This record gives sequence, C-alpha cells and structure tokens, in this order.
Amino acid sequence: MTYINGGVCAAQGFKASGIHVGVKTHNTGKKDLALIVADNICNAAAVYTKNVVQAAPILVTKDHLKNGKARAVLVNSGNANACAPQGIENANKSCAALAVELGIDAADIIVASTGVIGQKLPVHVIEGGVPQLVQELSHTGSQDAASAIMTTDLAMKELAVEFEIGGKSVRIGGIAKGSGMIHPNMGTMLGFLTTDCTISSAMMQQALIHATNVSFNRVSVDGDTSTNDMLSLMASGLAGNDEITSDGADYQIFLAALCDICTEFAKMIAADGEGAEHLITCTVRGTKTEAEAEALSKSVISSTLTKAAIFGADANWGRVLCAMGYSGVEFDPAGVSIAFESAAGQIIVCEHGTGLNFDEGLAEKILKEHDVTIDITMDAGKAECTCWGCDITYEYIKINGDYRT
Amino acid sequence: MTYINGGVCAAQGFKASGIHVGVKTHNTGKKDLALIVADNICNAAAVYTKNVVQAAPILVTKDHLKNGKARAVLVNSGNANACAPQGIENANKSCAALAVELGIDAADIIVASTGVIGQKLPVHVIEGGVPQLVQELSHTGSQDAASAIMTTDLAMKELAVEFEIGGKSVRIGGIAKGSGMIHPNMGTMLGFLTTDCTISSAMMQQALIHATNVSFNRVSVDGDTSTNDMLSLMASGLAGNDEITSDGADYQIFLAALCDICTEFAKMIAADGEGAEHLITCTVRGTKTEAEAEALSKSVISSTLTKAAIFGADANWGRVLCAMGYSGVEFDPAGVSIAFESAAGQIIVCEHGTGLNFDEGLAEKILKEHDVTIDITMDAGKAECTCWGCDITYEYIKINGDYRT
Repeated sequence: MTYINGGVCAAQGFKASGIHVGVKTHNTGKKDLALIVADNICNAAAVYTKNVVQAAPILVTKDHLKNGKARAVLVNSGNANACAPQGIENANKSCAALAVELGIDAADIIVASTGVIGQKLPVHVIEGGVPQLVQELSHTGSQDAASAIMTTDLAMKELAVEFEIGGKSVRIGGIAKGSGMIHPNMGTMLGFLTTDCTISSAMMQQALIHATNVSFNRVSVDGDTSTNDMLSLMASGLAGNDEITSDGADYQIFLAALCDICTEFAKMIAADGEGAEHLITCTVRGTKTEAEAEALSKSVISSTLTKAAIFGADANWGRVLCAMGYSGVEFDPAGVSIAFESAAGQIIVCEHGTGLNFDEGLAEKILKEHDVTIDITMDAGKAECTCWGCDITYEYIKINGDYRT
Repeated sequence: MTYINGGVCAAQGFKASGIHVGVKTHNTGKKDLALIVADNICNAAAVYTKNVVQAAPILVTKDHLKNGKARAVLVNSGNANACAPQGIENANKSCAALAVELGIDAADIIVASTGVIGQKLPVHVIEGGVPQLVQELSHTGSQDAASAIMTTDLAMKELAVEFEIGGKSVRIGGIAKGSGMIHPNMGTMLGFLTTDCTISSAMMQQALIHATNVSFNRVSVDGDTSTNDMLSLMASGLAGNDEITSDGADYQIFLAALCDICTEFAKMIAADGEGAEHLITCTVRGTKTEAEAEALSKSVISSTLTKAAIFGADANWGRVLCAMGYSGVEFDPAGVSIAFESAAGQIIVCEHGTGLNFDEGLAEKILKEHDVTIDITMDAGKAECTCWGCDITYEYIKINGDYRT
C-alpha cells in the first residue's frame, strides 16, 4: 500500500470542487461550499454522530443512503444547519438545487454541514453558488473541496492510498475536517472518502464501521461529540476487481487500506485540534482486552489536566495515572509503568505505580517536541491500543470563547 | 436552619489549627498542615474518591474508620502522597507522630493529603511540625485549618449551620478545599465536617453518602476525578439530642442540614475552580427522572466548549444542546428550551429545540455576570436537577501547564 496524491479525486471516476459562496460571513473569501461528484451512480455507506441531537443534513443523508447508493456529496462550512429553523427544508433545497444542475436524483446526494449551531442556513446563498460549484468540478479539485469544508482547521486534510486486489490497482482517497468538538464517539468530524474498488454497499458499511472504530473513535480534542459528524464512502467500481460481497482475502486487503487511511486522517485531526501545539499519542500495552487498553488510553488523551501538562511540557505523570484511574477499568496501580517519548528521547517516569527520580531537563526537552507519546505498560495481559489527542492551550480558549462572533 | 460563624469549630467539642511546616516548598510561608481534634472520641464516617488509583492516606483512613470512630483529622497540602514511594508508611508515620503528641490511638486519626502526585511525602517535615500544630489548637482555629488545606484555591472555604433537633440546638460545621481535578464522581475535593449531633456512625455514613450525591457529585471543574478526595464527618454528641439511630424525623432534619451545607461547599468549590471567572449553575427541569436531569445537567457543566463559551460571554446555546445530546440520555430535541439568566436579566435563546432571534447585547450582559445560570426546560416529565461548574479560562491553562514547578 502506497500513499499517493490526488485526495478525494485519486480513485477513478470522481471529480471535486470547492468555492466561496458566502455562508462564512466573517471570513470573506474563504471557501465554504464543497462538491464531490461521481461519473456514475456509486455504492455508498456512511457512519454518523451518536449525539441524540442530530443536524438536519444528517437526517436527510440517512434517508438518502437507505438504498446504499449515492452520486454526489455536497458540504457547506460556516453553518451547521443543526437546531436551526427550517433545517430539513433547507438541506432538501440544497440537494434539489444541485440535483437540477447535475441532472441527477436529489435522493442520490450526501449532504453535510459544519459550523455554528442554531442559526438558519442561508440556503439562497448555497443555491446561488451551485452553478459555479458544478462548473468548477475537476479531477484536480480535491484541495479546493478540502479547503471548503474547513472551519477552525489550520491544515487542509486530504489523503489517498493505492493498493492491489486480485492484480487490479485499487485506490481509496478522501478529504476530512476536524478541529473542535472532537471526541471518540463515532463521528468526531467530517470525512468524505471515495474508492474505485468494486464492493457491495453492505461490505462498505461493515468496513466503514470497523475503520471508524479503530481510527476516528480513538481521537479526542475536547470531549465534545458534535451534532453534525459524518464519514461517507462512495465506490465507483472502476478498478475492475471482482466485486467484494463477503468477508475474505480481498475484503481484508480493502479493510486494511481503509483502516490505514482513516487512522492517518484521525491523527491529522488530532494534531490540528483547535489551538493545539502538540499531537499526543497514548499507547497502552499489557491489558487483558483491547477494549480495556482503549478505555485507558482514551481517558488519558481526554484528560484536561494531562492535556494542560503537555502544553506546559510538564512531565506530570500523576495526571496520567489519575486519568487511568477514573477510566472505568479496574487495574492494579502497582502494575503500571509510564514513559514519555518523542524525537528528543525517552524517559521512564513511573515504574510499578510509583514515581522515579528522573531528569526533569530531559523530560521537558522530550515534551517540547510537537509529537509526544505517552507509553503505558501494564502487566495484566497481552492486549494493547493507541489513541490520539492534543494539548489544551490559550488559543483553544480564545477560539472557543468567541466562536460565533 | 441558620448559617453561623465558626466553621469546623462551630459544633461543640472541636478545636482546630493550621500552620506552615514546609511541605509546600514553592510557596514559602503558606500554611500546609491542618489539624482538627475532638475533645472526646467521636462517631465518624467518610466517603472517598472512586478513582481506581487511591492515595495512601485514603487507604489508611479507610482502615482507621472501620470501627466508625475517630478523634482527629490531620491534613497536609503540597503533596498528595499518591503513587509515591513509602506512601502507606509515611501516612502511618504522620498519624503516629500526632498520636504521641495528643496521647491518642493512631487508629483514631483521619489522615488526608492534597498536592502533587508521585513525589515522596516529606514526612520528617510533618513530624517536626506536629508539636506546634497541637500547641496552636483552639476553638477559633477553623480559618487556620481551612487555609492550610488549600492548594490552588483562591478562597478559603469554611461554613457552619445551626438547627434544632428535639428542642436541642445542633450544629454542623466544616472546612473544604477544591479547585482543580474536580469532577462529579464522589470525592471531588477534601472536606472535613464536624457536628455535635448525637448520631450513630451508621446513620452518619448513610447521611454523608446521600449528601455527597446531591452536592459534591453535582460539581465539575475539569472532569478529572482525583486520587485523593475525601469527605469526613465527626460527631461529638455534645448537642444532647436523643441519639439518631434510624431514619425518622430527627434524621431527616439532620440530613437536610447536612445536604444544605454540603451544597453550599460544592458551589464554593465550583466558583473557585482553577482560573474560574464564572460560577455556572445548570438546572434541567421536565425530565422523567431526577437521574436523567442530573446526567443532562452534568454533561452541560462538564462541556469544555460550553465552559469556553461562558468564559467569552458568548450565548452559544448550540453547545449546551450538543452537550445534552451526548449525555447518554435519550430525549427529543424538539422538547428542549434553553435560557440564560443572571443578575442582569434573563433571555430565552432556544425554544422547542430551535434557535430564537435574541438580543445579543443583552445576552452578553447577562453572561458577563459572575454567577450565570443555564435554565433548561424539557417536556418529558416533572423531575429536575441542578449541577454546578465554572468556565475554563487562560488562567486554568496557565495553572495546569505548569503545576509542579
């Protein structure tokens, strides 16, 4: 498997575009409407936020994907169309405008929104922008689309991979956005994937759920699960492999590639968490089950106090052990060892649940690197899991103290 | 029931003191050792952190309170004696030194610590300070003791109430500390209560659990449940009421007073959260059960995004509804109304799950007050619950980015 260029247009049969239409009123000129279109109808699957409060586009997309088919993805940033007046009506109007312009069925459109909750979607602005959006569709439009779905993201997120199934070259590509309101409970962001693999909708859905569980669901920025999160996958089938309709060698190859690209996206989202200065990777090894290792690791990367300590390059491992302690997992603290690691080195700070005397200068040097790993070793079994998060900074408070204005 | 002066010494039969001995090495001169002593052996009860990782003094105190009796409380700040070398040994040494000085049994001592995790307790410093600590015991020592248990707290916390049981005047008083690592899962802080009520240890324990559940367990500062939290209660029995040994009218009077003083302490702790500029009260009304209202309210006051919005005086109610949505409680968003309230007025921002047009200027004015209430009304039933939290600020990040140094 190789990472390649092209993002969401890397797989055969997809074009994309992204333009500014004016949903974002405060950042004039920033792109705010994205489109991905398949040359032909695709098998499709999606996973959604588990928040009880779901934005209108989530409800509309769920309905549209009931038949496992899609032709296009339409996404606006700048307004979440969640808890907003005429939400469903406006999501439908957006789809209708695009359907007319593309000459397709509105029910074949995946629609998504991200931005402020509770404000009416300026649907006329979207409707007015659709013709230009369609006109600008191209095989090199992935970056435009990736830019147009960003909110407080600083980095554009697009990836693509190439691998082989049955001698045929297969690609999976995509774009994603993250930043705030990121927490491991599905969703956690917007992601739109495409592939030219020939695969049934049912197997795509199964693969997407598995991939989400081991990637996006292992990331936390701030513990807040959004109302709008969605990850979709469309398959054009143009790679020419034998159709994947059940679990088997081909499916496992596809699944491995999908998990890999989703994990890379997840790490990009954690690293680009609102105001983040560090990507925090936490690996827990030596538990009885993977679920236990995951719960422990998630608790550590979600701990506000641990995040603040990493921001301050303070090797306050007590907060790591404390966060493990309230994870809900039963364990013997005497079996826990903790190390901090980065490009600057590695330092063991706690062994058998007790603090060691360590070189504070070296610890600080290690924690000042951008990518910091918290390595936790336990003695209860052979299972392990890695989760990703980021530090909490002054900038996070600034961004979120004044998000709407 | 009346609030009175005297704190932990308000009830008959208790003295207290608090001095600087040098456990706090970075804040020279700040008090760091507190003592509460009863004239005679007391019935006693305590509740503890539910963190799997428990500090040595928690383990020692649990053992000491097995017989439901205590004579004194010894607390140091500046070092948590958690995950630290020789933790149990040093907690025992602290008790032994005090036992010798007071001429009491070491097993009748409640011992507690708060501060940095993982560093060895400088027990010789505590042992050396015990004689002076005992010498300074007085009926007016509550404030000294309250000061000596503070870490990053800005406000000293002491309260006392007076009420009547069977024609006898009864008092409950106490001291507490909070600030960081505060989250609703028992514990959440240190609190030491005294009463002159005549009541059995078993009924004290029952009352303490109930009072904790409706007060301290409804507060969150940062979602981190500490390894060291403890709330204890000692009863001297000097009020002269008939001993409370079962549920009944007298018990209910005592319980009501205990709940009230614990709730006031809980609010003080939320308002004095690390770096906090606002006390946030969130009341949810109209759920089927109190547990549902509590889960919803806790989710709101624990939401980092909601806390950041209140810090910025930004009426971003979408984050409130979003936090309700991931609380684990099933509900229909269309049945939710949200209002912000403070001394500056009240404004309804969301009705039937949909945003209203509201006066942003008034909303900002309301949210700039220190005490802000989020009022949530639902249509599913008659139950309600109130929880308390605080905003997240630059100062929180500053404090916690560099806590140990």
